Amino acid sequence: MIITIGRQYGSGGSEIGKKLAQRLGYTFYDKEILTMAAEENGFSAAAMEHYDEKPSGSLIYSLYMTGAATADTLPLNQQLAFAQFNVIRKVAQSDNCVIVGRCADYILREKENLLTVFLHAPLEERAKRIMAEKNIDSLSLAEKTVKKTDKFREDYYNFFTHKKWGSATCANLALDTSVLGIDRCVEIIAGTVELMEE
Amino acid sequence: MIITIGRQYGSGGSEIGKKLAQRLGYTFYDKEILTMAAEENGFSAAAMEHYDEKPSGSLIYSLYMTGAATADTLPLNQQLAFAQFNVIRKVAQSDNCVIVGRCADYILREKENLLTVFLHAPLEERAKRIMAEKNIDSLSLAEKTVKKTDKFREDYYNFFTHKKWGSATCANLALDTSVLGIDRCVEIIAGTVELMEE
Repeated sequence: MIITIGRQYGSGGSEIGKKLAQRLGYTFYDKEILTMAAEENGFSAAAMEHYDEKPSGSLIYSLYMTGAATADTLPLNQQLAFAQFNVIRKVAQSDNCVIVGRCADYILREKENLLTVFLHAPLEERAKRIMAEKNIDSLSLAEKTVKKTDKFREDYYNFFTHKKWGSATCANLALDTSVLGIDRCVEIIAGTVELMEE
Repeated sequence: MIITIGRQYGSGGSEIGKKLAQRLGYTFYDKEILTMAAEENGFSAAAMEHYDEKPSGSLIYSLYMTGAATADTLPLNQQLAFAQFNVIRKVAQSDNCVIVGRCADYILREKENLLTVFLHAPLEERAKRIMAEKNIDSLSLAEKTVKKTDKFREDYYNFFTHKKWGSATCANLALDTSVLGIDRCVEIIAGTVELMEE
């Protein structure tokens, strides 16, 4: 069983994913996908963090997809994206796991026993969470950071999947983490997995 | 406790709402809201069905909202919408209930103990459901009907709520009824209500 978690920035996706993996005895992958992709391709993980889930222009990508350009002519962020997609395919073959972000829902769309989840919360709630996590003093600065990161994630997702990030139809199960709370979200997702396995 | 259910046409919203209400011992409202609103305002419910959850131009509505026009100058569909919103407010005060459609999530947004749900499924699955329910022979005709009804619902919802119908953020809980199945959706929503009541 594979659970993918898409998430608005600051909605608690990583915390929920980690607790869910513990609760179910699954392996948890978030930044781990980035680290593994970097290692396998001889990139520095620290340097690659800058490119993680960031969009970019589509011209060279189009040339690559039509075979008119080779993979190593792609911008670094796209090389990293493809390396991460390969890691996602690999870990999904060998393990029950929870995978956060990185278009995993789309990459694994043909797989059986897949539950795709999307987590969201109102902007102010997410900004407050980020203020606490990143030691940011100003709510308006935190809100700007949240919006900017979401825009990156949206562009990245829409670019590779041709779907609409944040639409209810992009996930089997979407949850408001501020109304429901972190622990209830873990229970609801785990309960759904148990129902699917019956 | 109030549960509101928004739904794409053909996703099984009414069936899930009815089973959920039975499971929890709540009152179920779907077309009942229309019938009650029609009765209270001396409209014919049968005649009003034509106007149910249909959008319309916004000019007279704007005049009404600014006080420059009276309610009885509104187009019939908007009079019906307001009459239904009043019924929604009234039933939500007296009863644990499940309310399907009609912007109930927005009308009741200030209420505590509210769970807002959105149900969806891929177009083809919904068209097949409608073919069976309405005795339609052609898949493409059923798909057209589904798309047209969704467009009505979207315009109606966006017009009155200034929100974006079908966005994950419009509901606390959104479910794909084709992947999860009708009965599992009922269990997941009922389980969420039970977690919220703990």
